[in-house]
Order: sequence, then C-alpha cells, then structure tokens
Amino acid sequence: MCQLLGMSCQSPANIDFSLQGFTARGGKTDEHKDGWGIGFFRQARWQVYTDANPAAHSPLTTQLQQEKIKSDTVLAHIRKATVGDVSERNCHPFVRTIAGQSWVFAHNGHLPTYAPNLNGAFLPVGDTDSEKAFCWILQQAQARLTQDQLQAEVPSCLFALLHRLCQEIAAEGVFNVLISNGNWLFAFCSTHLSYLQRQYPFAQARLVDLDITLDLNAVNSQDDRMVLLSTKPLTHNEPWVSLNSGEALILQNGIIVQQQTAVQQQAA
Amino acid sequence: MCQLLGMSCQSPANIDFSLQGFTARGGKTDEHKDGWGIGFFRQARWQVYTDANPAAHSPLTTQLQQEKIKSDTVLAHIRKATVGDVSERNCHPFVRTIAGQSWVFAHNGHLPTYAPNLNGAFLPVGDTDSEKAFCWILQQAQARLTQDQLQAEVPSCLFALLHRLCQEIAAEGVFNVLISNGNWLFAFCSTHLSYLQRQYPFAQARLVDLDITLDLNAVNSQDDRMVLLSTKPLTHNEPWVSLNSGEALILQNGIIVQQQTAVQQQAA
Repeated sequence: MCQLLGMSCQSPANIDFSLQGFTARGGKTDEHKDGWGIGFFRQARWQVYTDANPAAHSPLTTQLQQEKIKSDTVLAHIRKATVGDVSERNCHPFVRTIAGQSWVFAHNGHLPTYAPNLNGAFLPVGDTDSEKAFCWILQQAQARLTQDQLQAEVPSCLFALLHRLCQEIAAEGVFNVLISNGNWLFAFCSTHLSYLQRQYPFAQARLVDLDITLDLNAVNSQDDRMVLLSTKPLTHNEPWVSLNSGEALILQNGIIVQQQTAVQQQAA
Repeated sequence: MCQLLGMSCQSPANIDFSLQGFTARGGKTDEHKDGWGIGFFRQARWQVYTDANPAAHSPLTTQLQQEKIKSDTVLAHIRKATVGDVSERNCHPFVRTIAGQSWVFAHNGHLPTYAPNLNGAFLPVGDTDSEKAFCWILQQAQARLTQDQLQAEVPSCLFALLHRLCQEIAAEGVFNVLISNGNWLFAFCSTHLSYLQRQYPFAQARLVDLDITLDLNAVNSQDDRMVLLSTKPLTHNEPWVSLNSGEALILQNGIIVQQQTAVQQQAA
C-alpha cells in the first residue's frame, strides 16, 4: 500500500509543514519507503518531481524544503511497492494530457488482477496497477465526455463519471485515489482517506509523525482557506474527517464544491 | 526565437559544463530570457523542470548545479517569446505520452500562421505555435504508425515519418526541433542546429559564453561517448558540425545512428 496527500488552496500556499509529517512516513515513522513523488500546480502548469529513494531520506525532500514553493494545488504520494519494481517510472503521481489539460493521478491500494482493455489512446509507461487504472479512467473520460464537459470550470459531469469509474475499479481491490487538473482536485475513498478544512480561526497544529507544532494563524491571513487530504490525519488539534468507503469529493479554491456518498451501482 | 540543447550518452553523464554556457545565453550573453526548461531521462523516466525566469538568473539553474544530475538523454530550451506570453505553461520542453512512452519536445523558430487540424487526441495546454506543432506530430505518429513501429528499439519508420512531418511544418516558417523518448533523440534542422561527437581522446574544451575551460579527459573514461546538439556551438576547441537545412538525425547511446539530408517532397 501507499499513502496519499493532497491540497487545494484559495491562494497559493506552502505545504512544507504537512509535507514534513507526510514524508516522515516514507521510511521513518512508517514503511512507505519505495520512492515518492509530488506535483505542484503553479502558474497554470504542473511541476512533478519523483524520486525512487525513501521520502524520509530523499535529496528531493531536502531540496523542496529549501525552495519553499507556493502552489494552488498539490498532490503527493509515498510508495510501498506491491506491483512494479522500485524505480522512478513507477513513482506516482503519473501525468497525462487530456483535452488540453494536464491531469495528475496518485493511488493508494492494490488491484491484484486488474486488466482493463486499453485501446492505445493512453498506455502505461511503468508496471504498476495504478498507472493502468489511470489510463483506463482517461480512456473512459475521453470516450464518454465532450471536450466542453472535460474543460468545464464546474466539472459536474466529470465528477459523476470519475466517481462511477472509481467505484467500478475499487470493486477489484483497494482504490483510494486523487486526481487533479490543477483547477479541481478529485478524491475517492475506497478504504482510507481523510480531509481537513483549514480556515480562520486557524489552529496550533502539531504533527502526528514529528514533534513539531505550527501556529497556523501566524502563517495564514483571515481570508485564507484550504482543504488537505491525507490517507491518515497528519496533525493533532485539527478536525480531520474520515471519508466513508465509496465516497467522493471535488475541491476547488480551498473548499469542497461537490461531495457524494457511494452510489448504488445498477444491475447489469 | 529560442535556443536548443540536447545530449545523448552511452552511459549517464553530467551536462553541467555545457549547461553553464547554454543558460548564460538566457539573459546574460544573449537575449533568450523568457523562461527555460530542461528534461533529464534517468531511470527510465523523464524529469522535466521549467522556470519562467531567465535561465541566466533562474533559481532552477542554481539548484540543478547543486544536484549534479547524471542522465542518459537531456533536452533543454531557452525561450525568447514570439507566440504566447511568458509563463511556465509556455516553457519548453513539452511532454506527452504516446504508445506507453513519454516524449519530450522543444522547438526553436517561429510558425506565424500555423494552424494544424487537431482532432483532440493531443491538444496544447499553453499558447505556443510550438506545442501545436508537437500535438500535430503526435497525432500523425499515432495515426500512421503501428504500436510496434512506435516502440521499436531501432526507430526507422518513426525516423522517416518525423523527418517528413518536420519538413512539412518547416515550410510554414522556422522549425528547428528536438524530440526524444529517452531511448532515441531526434533532431531536425530548419535553419540552425549543430552537433558535436565527443569521444576519446577528449579535448580541453572552453565555453564560448563564459571564460571556463574543462579538461574533458579528466571527467570521462576512454569508453565514454556522447553527442551534443546545440543551436550554436557551445565550446571552442571541439569539432562542432552544422547541419544543413532539411537535415535530420537520430541519436542513441551517444552516437548518430541515422542521418538523412533534406528529402525532396513529392508534388501533390
């Protein structure tokens, strides 16, 4: 299995505090040491960094801490390899372009016998079950939605489709997922995924994984707001909410804009 | 216009020396100051970095010098904006996935009235004529070649197609191009592109743009070999070769494996 981290913000924010706790789980406080990756959406472009080293001891982690990147949307993943060897090409997030937008994708879970029928429009580069699932989702999105629907500012049709596809795939194993085009961030919970709305008044947050506390009032203004997503809560003193199995949501500009519990699948 | 830099190596090499001279042209010794980008192929995955700052004064440049990345294949670009504003999404190289491979693309030139008929399989994210041309090339490659031809270790059919497409596009303006899937590096010369074969015995190379000399014998072994590509030669004391207009070549493992002069286009 692996762990996921996501963030959607109203105005570009720095994720270093949360990332410190998260990357510690990549070989220090937890076992997800088979590489990691992170995508930052800034200036309308994804910058994706991956490293096959354990996140807790990765040169990339050190480098990002020095850079103090501010970003609208962030998506990160620490890997515990199940399918596919430990290498950069198997590190999440994966990136593809659809309808003139770059989508990033990360998965926590396991799909042991998953074998979707890929028509060649989107094919995996690496060996993971995860990247196969991403390619399947893209193929379905391209086949079933119009370009206007794919590019919509308020992605209602897309949300419904992504939710349905994730439920279908989750039936084959464990499929907790984050997908984002930078404008929206979609999350689906198969087994474990929590979110946290941060807004004024902010807390004194203490990391679960490291003995570090941050006064969030000191680093945010009254108008700032953001939503964090994480496989397991990253901080004490904050109201993390666990999603239920089958539940999906979509974030934009630091708030939840759509949320949907498990949808009963129609019988075939 | 812009400038291009490419490298294909037999074993992973560090490009910092050449990159120092190249990035100096991004706002110090030359006018290509509207952002830059670089892709490193290592461990079977492209790592692409872009920055809308001038390369000569970019935090990314400093960071890469510290990292001392070794890579099999490198593709870089410094931008002088003609079509599209100065922003990260308009920085080359662009990346797309086709037939389960990631291709990176960078362009030097200008296609003022270029308007290819894109069917939606590959669409630009930014505003440049360059990214449009890349999408057109991908669309044609997907339509005209089989997956085996696209994935071939020795990409003969692909080479012929890329060469023909580049000639067609170059008829609409200036189109010097580098494209790579990490295994092969394709280059097409419309107006200006030079290459340099480096192998034993290595030279004492002096940068054209900075007063820096490097004894290449000290940093390479007798078996090392690599080919560099650059819009204009980067060093003195080395046998750079200018490509002719319409000429294309493909590099693998530090040597030129195919080279072809301009092909007479058949009349329609």
